[in-house]
Amino acid sequence: MPSNIFHDSPAPNITELDRFVAVIPAGGVGTRLWPLSRAAAPKFLHDLTGSGSTLIRATYDRLEPLSGSKVLLVTGDAHREAVCRQLPEVADENLVLETEPKDSGAAIGLAAAILFLRAPDTIMGSFAADQVISPVGKFQDAVREAVYTAASGKIVTIGLKPTHASTGFGYIRTGAPLNIPGAPSARIVSKFVEKPSAEIAEQYLASGEYNWNAGMFVAPVELILRHLKANQPALYEGLMEIAQAWDTPDRVAVKNRVWPTLPKIAIDYAVAEPAADAGDVAVIPADFSWDVVGDFAAIARLSNAKEVKDVKVIGEGARVFTEDSSGIVVSDTKRVIALVGIQDVVVVDTPDALLVTTRAHAQFVKMAVDGLKAKGDTDVL
Amino acid sequence: MPSNIFHDSPAPNITELDRFVAVIPAGGVGTRLWPLSRAAAPKFLHDLTGSGSTLIRATYDRLEPLSGSKVLLVTGDAHREAVCRQLPEVADENLVLETEPKDSGAAIGLAAAILFLRAPDTIMGSFAADQVISPVGKFQDAVREAVYTAASGKIVTIGLKPTHASTGFGYIRTGAPLNIPGAPSARIVSKFVEKPSAEIAEQYLASGEYNWNAGMFVAPVELILRHLKANQPALYEGLMEIAQAWDTPDRVAVKNRVWPTLPKIAIDYAVAEPAADAGDVAVIPADFSWDVVGDFAAIARLSNAKEVKDVKVIGEGARVFTEDSSGIVVSDTKRVIALVGIQDVVVVDTPDALLVTTRAHAQFVKMAVDGLKAKGDTDVL
Repeated sequence: MPSNIFHDSPAPNITELDRFVAVIPAGGVGTRLWPLSRAAAPKFLHDLTGSGSTLIRATYDRLEPLSGSKVLLVTGDAHREAVCRQLPEVADENLVLETEPKDSGAAIGLAAAILFLRAPDTIMGSFAADQVISPVGKFQDAVREAVYTAASGKIVTIGLKPTHASTGFGYIRTGAPLNIPGAPSARIVSKFVEKPSAEIAEQYLASGEYNWNAGMFVAPVELILRHLKANQPALYEGLMEIAQAWDTPDRVAVKNRVWPTLPKIAIDYAVAEPAADAGDVAVIPADFSWDVVGDFAAIARLSNAKEVKDVKVIGEGARVFTEDSSGIVVSDTKRVIALVGIQDVVVVDTPDALLVTTRAHAQFVKMAVDGLKAKGDTDVL
Repeated sequence: MPSNIFHDSPAPNITELDRFVAVIPAGGVGTRLWPLSRAAAPKFLHDLTGSGSTLIRATYDRLEPLSGSKVLLVTGDAHREAVCRQLPEVADENLVLETEPKDSGAAIGLAAAILFLRAPDTIMGSFAADQVISPVGKFQDAVREAVYTAASGKIVTIGLKPTHASTGFGYIRTGAPLNIPGAPSARIVSKFVEKPSAEIAEQYLASGEYNWNAGMFVAPVELILRHLKANQPALYEGLMEIAQAWDTPDRVAVKNRVWPTLPKIAIDYAVAEPAADAGDVAVIPADFSWDVVGDFAAIARLSNAKEVKDVKVIGEGARVFTEDSSGIVVSDTKRVIALVGIQDVVVVDTPDALLVTTRAHAQFVKMAVDGLKAKGDTDVL
């Protein structure tokens, strides 16, 4: 707004946002997106919506206007090369490579510890690398509000206004407004609740008091560490030991020694829920559209890819012919794919594995992965 | 029968069968079996039923007990190598390679002409290379009867007792019994009729007077040539010119010069129908089971391949996982194929092309081939 130019003091958001660092945890194979997404090429490395960007690149680009180049990435050691190809901007010291998966408590806790030792007043925001969000402006507005709220001494989640009674997400029960300057939407979180039954989900939706928990949060690193230390002292100690070595030549040696000894626990249990009980958690209810792209039905829904008659076709160079068919084809090969007289089909064609299912069964693709694992066909998982 | 040992004269079939030569026309791409069957690898080169033999090999093996090594093969020039791999027994002089397709009149007529010049009293039997027949014993019995009947001066078709009112086959109307020794089933053919409407087909079935025309026939080569000369003199002259050069060093040169000039006409119009009008055609009604393996639904029906739960899997080395699915998978690759929650599906996986359809739509696969041709994707046709 031009009028801001004439303010005596700088806008209140300048200093708060200067403290902001984005953390992007990039994990999770996306089993229900097999064979496209798999251990060696998890879903965040794919352009699942035909946007022209991989999910991890889109996540970075969405945050960059807020964080600038202050981004810390947490991912599996195996994905180093692919992630660096996607995000050449991220320097070595901002790339946390897990030698084995240790759940979100260790991943986000280590980010907090590293950032704390670099600058104790850092406000970090954690945003998973495999989500699809639009419009980006609304997301950024919510994150900005979250940063101002975090600066007041809160762990701040971003809650999504539910559009239906989903049983697939956890919910956040919102409490009283917090009246924080620059964050008009901020409210206290009265509690987190697990994925509900259909009946309970309907009640949540009707009450208007619940938001979906999108797993995004913004918080002073010092506050995260304080709760972590109180609830998971062993994890805290281990993470601080790694963090102290991080910006020294011992980084890799200490990480490789300590990481495998860390307990596995979700950040929800290690920090968020105890903090909510202590009244330390706030929520910014937001209404951008948000999707975790959980299965191929979601891809069909979200993708802007071209349609060949009634079939959505995803994949550069796909050669698809359809006749009296509907559904989605994901092509990771140059093969000709012909669909004839088949409805609501999902075909995922990769060089070494092919999946054929229906939109209605897309969520059961994990069964194929489990079945192939049991058969010993692990080369394609 | 042991009592035959005490007969004064040899069994009547010995001399007739000595005159018998099998002709195997191996043509037809099998468009409805794309992408397994295609121009470069037509269906007769595949083991479509999981029997362990390609269709052309099975055809040869079914005839060999009757013809011995006296087999003439007619196929496209492009298939020479593949056919020779399947049938190493067939010598060069018994391999008729068409430089371009000229329909059955030229293919079968040339076989008749070559065999006539080698031995004028030859009885040839023509059996397409892409059929599935069982039990073989019943087929051979019918061919034996056909040979005795042919020896009496007839062109003899083998008619199949209809099991349903098919609109996909031509029919043969049978006339009076012929009372030929060694051929108790032989009857005169009163006429050939084209593929009927459903209503007419029901009438044919109910009457008991009609048999399916399986396109198999057995005849003295001299009689075939006589009708060919009368009905298609230009074709006859061209074929005789090639045949006269056949067992000389000029074989290829003359064939390559004359073959492209020959008229295209089906043997039915060039010989069988005019011969029937002349009272020269007989039929052996037979009741072996016979299938032209026209589409993937037929393969699913005929194949003895292993089943993975309710999915029939065809293809050596196939790696198929199924969950709550039914249908058929034809695998011509080593890729893992996973089916999840999809019913009556047909999946045909080849290195450069993939087809996904349903059993009910199997007969419409030709649409994909036509569509790909129109799009210019001819590399996979």
